[in-house]
Amino acid sequence: MTPSGPKDLSGQRFSVRYHLTGTETAAQATAASICREQTVEVPDEVIPLGPIREQIVGRLEAFHRVASGAFEATISFAAETAGTEFTQLLNVIFGNISLQPGIRVARVDVPASGFSWLKGPRFGRKGIRTRLAVPDRPLLCTAVKPMGLSAKELADLAYQFALGGIDIIKDDHGLADQPFCLFEERVTRCAEAVARANRETGRHCLYAPNVTGPAGVSIQRALFAKQAGAGGLLISPGLTGWDTMRQLAEDERLVLPVIMHPALLGSFATDPHSGLSHYTLFGQLPRLAGADACIFPTYGSRFYFSRDDCRSIAEGANDEFGAYRRTFPTPGGGLTFERLPELIEFYGPDVILLIGGALRQYGPDLVANCQQFHRCVSRTPAVKAG
Amino acid sequence: MTPSGPKDLSGQRFSVRYHLTGTETAAQATAASICREQTVEVPDEVIPLGPIREQIVGRLEAFHRVASGAFEATISFAAETAGTEFTQLLNVIFGNISLQPGIRVARVDVPASGFSWLKGPRFGRKGIRTRLAVPDRPLLCTAVKPMGLSAKELADLAYQFALGGIDIIKDDHGLADQPFCLFEERVTRCAEAVARANRETGRHCLYAPNVTGPAGVSIQRALFAKQAGAGGLLISPGLTGWDTMRQLAEDERLVLPVIMHPALLGSFATDPHSGLSHYTLFGQLPRLAGADACIFPTYGSRFYFSRDDCRSIAEGANDEFGAYRRTFPTPGGGLTFERLPELIEFYGPDVILLIGGALRQYGPDLVANCQQFHRCVSRTPAVKAG
Repeated sequence: MTPSGPKDLSGQRFSVRYHLTGTETAAQATAASICREQTVEVPDEVIPLGPIREQIVGRLEAFHRVASGAFEATISFAAETAGTEFTQLLNVIFGNISLQPGIRVARVDVPASGFSWLKGPRFGRKGIRTRLAVPDRPLLCTAVKPMGLSAKELADLAYQFALGGIDIIKDDHGLADQPFCLFEERVTRCAEAVARANRETGRHCLYAPNVTGPAGVSIQRALFAKQAGAGGLLISPGLTGWDTMRQLAEDERLVLPVIMHPALLGSFATDPHSGLSHYTLFGQLPRLAGADACIFPTYGSRFYFSRDDCRSIAEGANDEFGAYRRTFPTPGGGLTFERLPELIEFYGPDVILLIGGALRQYGPDLVANCQQFHRCVSRTPAVKAG
Repeated sequence: MTPSGPKDLSGQRFSVRYHLTGTETAAQATAASICREQTVEVPDEVIPLGPIREQIVGRLEAFHRVASGAFEATISFAAETAGTEFTQLLNVIFGNISLQPGIRVARVDVPASGFSWLKGPRFGRKGIRTRLAVPDRPLLCTAVKPMGLSAKELADLAYQFALGGIDIIKDDHGLADQPFCLFEERVTRCAEAVARANRETGRHCLYAPNVTGPAGVSIQRALFAKQAGAGGLLISPGLTGWDTMRQLAEDERLVLPVIMHPALLGSFATDPHSGLSHYTLFGQLPRLAGADACIFPTYGSRFYFSRDDCRSIAEGANDEFGAYRRTFPTPGGGLTFERLPELIEFYGPDVILLIGGALRQYGPDLVANCQQFHRCVSRTPAVKAG
């Protein structure tokens, strides 16, 4: 085997902490196999000598026991293995080994200033607060729905929500471009309705239409939405691919806050011994891919997330992570007014609280319901400056 | 609640068979909640009377016990809920409920002629066989790798593989556009090398470069590849989003066979009580999204798939499914010459056999190794006509 491989690698590396299930011997073998599987994907004896063997193959940096039958392996990869593409970064982190049991990504560690080619959230928490002119309380979010209403009916809802003091009104993530409610008409009408309410209230409520769509179409929808007066964008990267979200976040023609919806991503976190940790899936990846806020189902909702899962998501959104801005945790999936004090205590005041369908259950006067939502939240302690 | 909703729905519906874990009472409650969760996503009392309640909300068509503590619920959805977009179709099938435990998509049932807006595989098995002029034996596939080799070194490998009689040479799915091996140079050189070998052998080996890339970039890479003489395209929809694969399959400027790689998709199938069945994930969805062949790790490989998993994938690729063409099952992940007779008996001769790194382990003469691969396969019974 003659030496082969690139002679000009930078030496910069990123690393991934994998949690491995099994005996120590098995976990060590798995760690060694990950180093090859995620890079060269050939048997050891076929790996050329030189830079490929020494730098391209993943490198086991640390290995220790974290619980009975569970081990953490920290594996580093040459920055160049991911090129300058989020698709390939995901592939190196978890592409092939998603097909193997007993391997879970616990955490991704990026270079100190992040990846030069990946900008992350453009707004982050401070940027969204500045746009809304709400410096310190939890933010209020709701959705226009259900699917099947006309654009005009949805716009009427949006108007009432904005009048009642909601900060962020998003499309339901199931509103796409169905024949009974076409994207362009819906966005035009809803943006107009929210702008009208803002003129009446003096507030800065933003409307975030769902731009999830076919390949090449999400960016076109986002550009249309911007022209129509949308104040943000909602996207489900599980449906479009993560990189479409990055594209929206980075496009200089848009410059709009990006709100991520978790549709179709749940399977990555279902099995506690495989997939991606809640920390990485809803904390770190959204930041890498440019989300300013990430929706997830809170504990105690109709979904199964535990308190630990949710704490972990909030930490992933908040912890130091390269130079990436912090993303707003946006718990939803079954909030009620009664639970707001508890949830604000749990997540802290630097949070977006999403009440969807439940907001309609408090009576027919939606403006009054929103005002009540507002009062529940405004009684809570403010975010500390800094 | 006043009646509301679209008055002109077609009445056409598609349906999904969900496997639900739990007691019968719990499973029935879950089935009822799926009907709302995947469509209107509001509590029952908020659903307007009329077409939304009667047609937009999912409809439980059948419910029966399939095993102890396991039930199958067949739920139908109005065709219009998915609009004419694969992203939204995925969302209706499994978007929000991916976040709930104990729900697994067993199978998708489409209208008799499929969806008018979704063409499926352009080539299918027959189309690929026609392109290769190989009517009836198992097809041979391998990959150029490892990551870290230069474009010239990879092209040298491709040349030897093609000389040795490989039918389909794909890029390793980890070859993207890294600085040490840029996409355009690699594709140009490899396509040229395979064309040169074809002139010498008289065969029709096709080279399928990996066009997995950032949003909007995969289609550009595919167009470049076509110009450069590529005979097919490799894509990982788990990395790009499924709809990017559909885009490649449908683009009239391309007209190239599409080979799907399963990177990052494994988490959907890991937990047998959640996610997507192997039948749907690697059998049905690839066909809906236009793959002519779908790679997956065979049983007995370094991945965990069982014989039943693999049989189910092969059935999903082969069963009647709307008017969609049949996709080639493409088992890989650890094939050896010794296992070929067994695998051909298991999958049948209408299969693409992918031997990657192992092909290098039989000795330094790669042409001879490929010829040996060819001999192992050519001794097997042919595909029956029809």
